Amino acid sequence: MDKTAVSASIISELRAIVGDANVLTSAEDRICYAYDGQRVECVPDAVVRPADAEQISRILILANSESFPVVPRGAGTGLSGGSVASSGGVVLDLTRMNRIIELDPANLHMIVEPGVITTAIADKAEAIGLLYPPDPGSMSVSTIGGNVAENAGGLRAGKYGVTRNYLMQIQAVAPTGEAFQSGARTRKCVAGYDLVSLMCGSEGTLGVITEISLRLVHMPKYRKSMMATFPDAAVAGQAIADIIAAGLVPSTLEIIDNVTLRVIEDYAHLGLPIDAGALVLVEFDGLVEAVVVEEAGLAIRSLTDSGAATVQQADDAAERDRIWQARRVALAALSRARPTSILEDVTVPLPKLAEMIAKVQQIGAKNSVMIGTFGHAGDGNLHPTILADERDEDEMKRVEVAVEELIAAALEFDGTISGEHGIGFSKAPFLTQEVGDGSIEVMKRIKRALDPNGILNPGKFV
Amino acid sequence: MDKTAVSASIISELRAIVGDANVLTSAEDRICYAYDGQRVECVPDAVVRPADAEQISRILILANSESFPVVPRGAGTGLSGGSVASSGGVVLDLTRMNRIIELDPANLHMIVEPGVITTAIADKAEAIGLLYPPDPGSMSVSTIGGNVAENAGGLRAGKYGVTRNYLMQIQAVAPTGEAFQSGARTRKCVAGYDLVSLMCGSEGTLGVITEISLRLVHMPKYRKSMMATFPDAAVAGQAIADIIAAGLVPSTLEIIDNVTLRVIEDYAHLGLPIDAGALVLVEFDGLVEAVVVEEAGLAIRSLTDSGAATVQQADDAAERDRIWQARRVALAALSRARPTSILEDVTVPLPKLAEMIAKVQQIGAKNSVMIGTFGHAGDGNLHPTILADERDEDEMKRVEVAVEELIAAALEFDGTISGEHGIGFSKAPFLTQEVGDGSIEVMKRIKRALDPNGILNPGKFV
Repeated sequence: MDKTAVSASIISELRAIVGDANVLTSAEDRICYAYDGQRVECVPDAVVRPADAEQISRILILANSESFPVVPRGAGTGLSGGSVASSGGVVLDLTRMNRIIELDPANLHMIVEPGVITTAIADKAEAIGLLYPPDPGSMSVSTIGGNVAENAGGLRAGKYGVTRNYLMQIQAVAPTGEAFQSGARTRKCVAGYDLVSLMCGSEGTLGVITEISLRLVHMPKYRKSMMATFPDAAVAGQAIADIIAAGLVPSTLEIIDNVTLRVIEDYAHLGLPIDAGALVLVEFDGLVEAVVVEEAGLAIRSLTDSGAATVQQADDAAERDRIWQARRVALAALSRARPTSILEDVTVPLPKLAEMIAKVQQIGAKNSVMIGTFGHAGDGNLHPTILADERDEDEMKRVEVAVEELIAAALEFDGTISGEHGIGFSKAPFLTQEVGDGSIEVMKRIKRALDPNGILNPGKFV
Repeated sequence: MDKTAVSASIISELRAIVGDANVLTSAEDRICYAYDGQRVECVPDAVVRPADAEQISRILILANSESFPVVPRGAGTGLSGGSVASSGGVVLDLTRMNRIIELDPANLHMIVEPGVITTAIADKAEAIGLLYPPDPGSMSVSTIGGNVAENAGGLRAGKYGVTRNYLMQIQAVAPTGEAFQSGARTRKCVAGYDLVSLMCGSEGTLGVITEISLRLVHMPKYRKSMMATFPDAAVAGQAIADIIAAGLVPSTLEIIDNVTLRVIEDYAHLGLPIDAGALVLVEFDGLVEAVVVEEAGLAIRSLTDSGAATVQQADDAAERDRIWQARRVALAALSRARPTSILEDVTVPLPKLAEMIAKVQQIGAKNSVMIGTFGHAGDGNLHPTILADERDEDEMKRVEVAVEELIAAALEFDGTISGEHGIGFSKAPFLTQEVGDGSIEVMKRIKRALDPNGILNPGKFV
């Protein structure tokens, strides 16, 4: 679909559906919806803020008859352009649909609308001793609908899994306007195609999610955090693979390389050991204290055997906070180190993690490009972040080569170009390389079948 | 698609693809492929036994051009008719594709062809200290391809999840003949639509799976089994919900009601307490002995508090085997109790489990129909098994009513008609009741998009 301006008569019809106050057309309003969590700018023609599934259905039916793009959006914290109106049209802002509909502690489920902030879900669960495990870095601002659309991961994915693992049932509206549901509020369900999984991670291209039944778990009672220093990031990577190979299941297992470590310290002044080649951060949690203690002990031994220079346990909450604060500010710290930061999301099998880390360093050196690496290394998921200045054309050419080489390396190691950030449009050029023409063709057929006029989030990976 | 005889010229072309020996056309050969694990009979026109994805692709291309149905089949142990050629045509027997291609202990994965017997996978993993957790009752004969197509569950699903949770990557052939892949051999992947999940549980209607990369976990080192007796099955159901509500995560949590218990004892002479209203079987496993012991202790207390008459721990392997032998033979024992057994797969939220169990008993009594109930109650998944004689028309009418009432009850309790057996054609009439017209329409659009000529496993739920 070409860029299409949304006509005045369409605006009138949209106003009739959602009310005047919920159609934004001024330049200053629209520009607020032009970005996501990365550096792109696509100003939509209008922003529409529906209140319920029925309004969404009417908007989509209108979009089909009038042929304009509709781009579902939560908080706009995505990292691959999924919520950006790259083909113009209307942004469908779902943040008004922000009710927590039901919390059932007996069945361990919570039913929410898509616009609820992820942290609000976690807090509501925690208040009654339950845990909503997925914890993407953006969770204090991101919406659950966006998390579902991107199948968001987070720091706890290695033990607890990703957003998909916590979806029991969804209600959605198909691109052509029909409401549908999939899944059940049970622990298992095989009633027909798994449309829950199909919608999860489809990045707003196959339907608009209007209600989500989330599975919760019991809040672990005990935690043990530790921080290890390594002389070299690749050695740290191998140490991480060794922990998993030993059968340990940390709730969190993260890496921070020296480049990232230095910018974090510069930003947050946490007293981190800035000469370390890399930090490895580990946490265990559980319902039984003896287990958590035993696991932590086994991890310390494993880290030491794998070449850690130091391993420091957090003895109190303050120390624990300091460790995790370091990790939480990593992206913010990197983002301010230079004018332009390009965050990758390559993920490799764990036995290839050390090699991949070494390869990232080589790619940086070879192309004279600064790369800070951190990430959910326990999942094989690295976020090599290229720091540059987009005004420097020559540097940006080198960055482009580096990105291509990073992706080629991940694929060479049997990995994926995206562990948790999605494809959107920023990774779209690389998807075929990973999955092949056959897979792209199957995706396109599904897309065309559900969205024959191509109105829902067009111009993305499919 | 109407029932179509497969012509002599098609048979010749199939022989050219797979070789003469791998096209079966005699009545005695074909009748072996007429059944699955339930009582239906649909004799295919021919059976074709491909050796690889390329042959499958050629067969599917031929089926599209000549318009005949192709029905993928593993061991034929399914329980909803998914692998039965209900519209005639060719059964695609995948059991020749039975190679274990790769076992990587470092990345905890195994790559297999679809025709590998599930137990062979579990055994191969166990030999090096790893566990392939999904353990459907049929695993000693069922194929992994069938397990994936049905998203098979099993006894360990409450703790470990179902087949879907162990799929890293699949290779498949689309109904129109194109090979495609989805997923990655990593712990996370969001590269495009989740075609792995879409194929898993699609019951052979969206493609033929030709290679599967399975995730493995570390084999737990310690186990604790126990058996509790309850005066009443509904009370037992509540006790099961209470265990989960207490935050315990048994690897297995099963119920056996009095009807089932008596037929098991009659069949296997295990010395079971046949006067109990129900048995609850519980097992914990883990890497740390102290944890398993503590969890078992908490479970005993919970069972007792919830009204167990007796709780008996298995002190040795023989006692443990006796407990699990009782569960394993349940279906076989029920199947021989009367000429006809109809196995249901209703699954409800755990807080509704006791009510659902009571409802099953009421439905049996009201319709004068004998129902034995057992199942993965810790998942809310019950297998009420109706015992009847299909030669008795009057009884079968009452059975039909009972089935409808069972399904209505499950849906009334926010449950699902199938927790793990799938829809196939035997549950197809009830699917709309559960998911609604919108969902059925979305499924049909996907089906038509991938299989425009409707040649792959036609006449099933979609």
